Amino acid sequence: MLREAVYHVAHGNYAYPVSEDTLRIMLRTAKGDLQTVSVLYQDRYGGSEPFVAPMEVAAEDELFAFYQTELVLDTKRFGYVFLLDDGKNAVFYTEKGFFDEVPPNTQFHYPYIAIRDLWQPPTWAQGAVIYQIFPERFANGDPTNDPSNVEPWAMLPTVTSQKGGDLQGVIDRFDHLVDLGVELIYFTPVFLAPSNHKYDTVDYYTIDPHFGDEETVRELIKLAHDHGIRVIFDAVFNHSGFGFFAFQDVLEHGEKSPYAHWFNIDSFPVQTDPPNYETFSNQIATMPKLMTDQDDVKDYFLEVGRYWVREFGIDGWRLDVANEIDHQFWREFRQAVKAESPEALIVGELWHEASEWVRGDQFDSVMNYSLQYACLDFFARGTIRAQSFANRLAKVQVNHTQAVNLSMFSLLGSHDTERFLTTCGGNVQKFSLAVAFQLTYAGAPMIYYGDEVGMEGLNDPDCRRGMIWDPEEQNLELLAWHKELIALRKEHKVLRSGRCRTVWADSATNVYGFVRFSQGEQVLVLLNNSPKAQNIGLEKIQWPVAVPKQVQDLLTKETYPLGEVRLEPHGTMILA
Amino acid sequence: MLREAVYHVAHGNYAYPVSEDTLRIMLRTAKGDLQTVSVLYQDRYGGSEPFVAPMEVAAEDELFAFYQTELVLDTKRFGYVFLLDDGKNAVFYTEKGFFDEVPPNTQFHYPYIAIRDLWQPPTWAQGAVIYQIFPERFANGDPTNDPSNVEPWAMLPTVTSQKGGDLQGVIDRFDHLVDLGVELIYFTPVFLAPSNHKYDTVDYYTIDPHFGDEETVRELIKLAHDHGIRVIFDAVFNHSGFGFFAFQDVLEHGEKSPYAHWFNIDSFPVQTDPPNYETFSNQIATMPKLMTDQDDVKDYFLEVGRYWVREFGIDGWRLDVANEIDHQFWREFRQAVKAESPEALIVGELWHEASEWVRGDQFDSVMNYSLQYACLDFFARGTIRAQSFANRLAKVQVNHTQAVNLSMFSLLGSHDTERFLTTCGGNVQKFSLAVAFQLTYAGAPMIYYGDEVGMEGLNDPDCRRGMIWDPEEQNLELLAWHKELIALRKEHKVLRSGRCRTVWADSATNVYGFVRFSQGEQVLVLLNNSPKAQNIGLEKIQWPVAVPKQVQDLLTKETYPLGEVRLEPHGTMILA
Repeated sequence: MLREAVYHVAHGNYAYPVSEDTLRIMLRTAKGDLQTVSVLYQDRYGGSEPFVAPMEVAAEDELFAFYQTELVLDTKRFGYVFLLDDGKNAVFYTEKGFFDEVPPNTQFHYPYIAIRDLWQPPTWAQGAVIYQIFPERFANGDPTNDPSNVEPWAMLPTVTSQKGGDLQGVIDRFDHLVDLGVELIYFTPVFLAPSNHKYDTVDYYTIDPHFGDEETVRELIKLAHDHGIRVIFDAVFNHSGFGFFAFQDVLEHGEKSPYAHWFNIDSFPVQTDPPNYETFSNQIATMPKLMTDQDDVKDYFLEVGRYWVREFGIDGWRLDVANEIDHQFWREFRQAVKAESPEALIVGELWHEASEWVRGDQFDSVMNYSLQYACLDFFARGTIRAQSFANRLAKVQVNHTQAVNLSMFSLLGSHDTERFLTTCGGNVQKFSLAVAFQLTYAGAPMIYYGDEVGMEGLNDPDCRRGMIWDPEEQNLELLAWHKELIALRKEHKVLRSGRCRTVWADSATNVYGFVRFSQGEQVLVLLNNSPKAQNIGLEKIQWPVAVPKQVQDLLTKETYPLGEVRLEPHGTMILA
Repeated sequence: MLREAVYHVAHGNYAYPVSEDTLRIMLRTAKGDLQTVSVLYQDRYGGSEPFVAPMEVAAEDELFAFYQTELVLDTKRFGYVFLLDDGKNAVFYTEKGFFDEVPPNTQFHYPYIAIRDLWQPPTWAQGAVIYQIFPERFANGDPTNDPSNVEPWAMLPTVTSQKGGDLQGVIDRFDHLVDLGVELIYFTPVFLAPSNHKYDTVDYYTIDPHFGDEETVRELIKLAHDHGIRVIFDAVFNHSGFGFFAFQDVLEHGEKSPYAHWFNIDSFPVQTDPPNYETFSNQIATMPKLMTDQDDVKDYFLEVGRYWVREFGIDGWRLDVANEIDHQFWREFRQAVKAESPEALIVGELWHEASEWVRGDQFDSVMNYSLQYACLDFFARGTIRAQSFANRLAKVQVNHTQAVNLSMFSLLGSHDTERFLTTCGGNVQKFSLAVAFQLTYAGAPMIYYGDEVGMEGLNDPDCRRGMIWDPEEQNLELLAWHKELIALRKEHKVLRSGRCRTVWADSATNVYGFVRFSQGEQVLVLLNNSPKAQNIGLEKIQWPVAVPKQVQDLLTKETYPLGEVRLEPHGTMILA
């Protein structure tokens, strides 16, 4: 038994409550090392014989197996130890290490399930289909509000291009979103700002006039809500734009400005070339970093967070550069926003391991760039094969609670990346396979505007081309594929909220498969990431224990009585 | 290289800021597996060649080595990977696993050191000498306020005994605390309650009249503060006493009581035998559990927390049954109390692994019962030997930041345990050795009243005997030993705030040694936990790299030119 591989802590993703009396726990061991793992648990004050819960492997990567189970106690106070058996030896794993017999005071404790700690992201966001709109490039609904220097819509954009896209355009094109089946729209910034991307906010209380005005926003949000579609805005609180009133005041009055402490300025007078103040990234003079850990700065932006939820009914916020703002700001931001609307969604932009921010006190969800990287490597670039892909997915999965996994924005691309189809070298088959994965796997799939009609583009600025609206230029087959998968997703609730388990990962054939399952519903997805047809022997599928044999047979043998299914080149097989 | 043993996350105890530009990071590997470990780090937006920082083993347990180092970047945004070399192979360890070359987007990120995240417990509490007083048993200064059923002071207590101890007694005996060198007094509850321990609070705003009144408290706190001694009270918010007004109201008015939701009552009317409501532990009818996750209950107890800090100037709170109250309560409690006094100390009662509560948003410190267990097993019971003791200490150490480790209440006993000397079978030599450890090792040593004069007692109620004041009955040698060690602690700041490293752990001779070190100061402590004298070859001491050879020699060879030091049976050697 490889003791060094065994890991558990009684918090975070390794121990979290899922109901008032139920604790879900996870244990990591070396892959393939153990025959059985179980948990012995009881009220932490003792008083009775322990219950025994067998654990099941929920995920595996190249090194580790991750066992899970649920413990139920009506007293809500858990004391527990693990019993690990490798077939030769059985040993207890406790908070204080490994023992043949459990000494006193060595149990892991999850001391109490308090209602308030029984946290999860808003139910509506778990598994929701998201559509990301970069307003300047989606549709130009009102040419009267265009900037003076507007370029032709179809011309390839530069960093400074203006195309005239606006919120009226979104209203005009709303049918496209409804037809597609979108459930949440995420808008990149819409507040007054000079750039086309508007991440350099000048006024957090004013809709950029090139995008529309408060009335346009109200109309758009009403239209969305009337269709059961939610809307979130982009909160850029890490830095302001150059023209933000507070920064302008500091430029004018120097250290005498009442806003001097809103920024981190090395010395006065303020200089801009190069900037002698802290900025977003390195020396981007137009984006001075905001000192959100100052009380009045914090209060200013907490009110921004409340204002648009309270006054305009937006359904939450996507938080730009979220990880460079202090944790306490986000804790208070969550309190402030949820006080206005308990169902509001708070999503952080994080490109790396995010568990620290998704613990219940800060964000509900984050951008799942780790999943995107895995999809790029597997489907688009072909630099990893099925088993590695499964390993990468497992690593992401085990970092978070199940409810967070269901809420993570599973994206294939964004305004900050090359478009996925372009990384596929324009190969629509590869892209379609990735889309099938994205729209059936656990998470809240986020479609970057235009990906659904086959738009291409290298990284910024090329990934921000004007949306293709001419059906002649759209890939209608790809669009139909998106609609079909989204419809399937809506038909089968398990694709939204079910658990998710890899059941097939064969690097030789490059076929990857997973099952979504819940009580009473299952969907099996097999993806052939190879240019050859592949035959899959259904008896080799590694079903979770929770899916009864009868159901397995119903899903597979009824349709394929010979026990074998043929996957076309780059083909998808979804058995529901 | 044992990859399964390698562990790092970019938060918590594995990555935390220690100044505005400095990040301390830790990496776990298999013990003895690697020759060198280093970190390659740079601004997370890139732009320059990475810096390289070698890592040093800071602690080892039976399975793992824990490497540490500090990274410095004036941009405060860290991207990093580890380079592990076992002498045969060198491999990079990244957020996404092991690689021969570092692929894009695989660095660990500590995105930004925000001032507000640069958290540590109050400096005054780091390493402070603490004295725990159970007021009913410390000294009876005012016989006029005694309960009617007072028993003779020296009579062995039962669960229900009343002895007449009070706060005037503490005032009268204050010289004892000053002479001892106490820096912080922790009082078990002093609010109105029927029991002798007063963990069944009837009124959180009233000092129990058997203990004194508000004036006594004011006098006591002024006396303490005049001597530079701080005072914390005990906050019992998990449950109230039976007589608490809200519970009485529910008893009287049932479900119509406006306080009905303050408790978790199965059905009305309320029944008490057995209780049909949730209680502390299992069915302790006199301690109904408080629903602190209800807003008005939360607000009531947050105000209690503020009140005694604001109105009486107490220096913080020890939190009873802290882990059975929801995390959000404690987050708001911290905000509330620190708003009254930023220097207030917040200490949770936790008997098990506590890292979830000591992350900056909730507690400053916790009771270090894991350290107590290790000391009991090593010094008192002799069930583990030096190497196991070192392993146990390492496990505790690596769970927390250094500042938290310095603030953990390192106790040998409390009102909830058998007295340490009793577990030593009355062997004062063993106890003295443990005290030498406690008062020189990292942490805030907490002395349970009377331990310093050799009091004995089995677990509650026996550990709560009346304090021995007659010098004839006190162990004056033990008292002098405490004073000597506390004086040494005050003389050498490094014993309060220095880092701590095991340098000797020999199970054969049962000698354990550690060094406290900081820039410019070092103290070496060797403890012979055996009934035989032992000779120690000083050249075998495993000094931290941070202690230069010259300083090592100064500490040892100048005093012991032959390179060998003799430790008496149960002897302590402190080289400062």
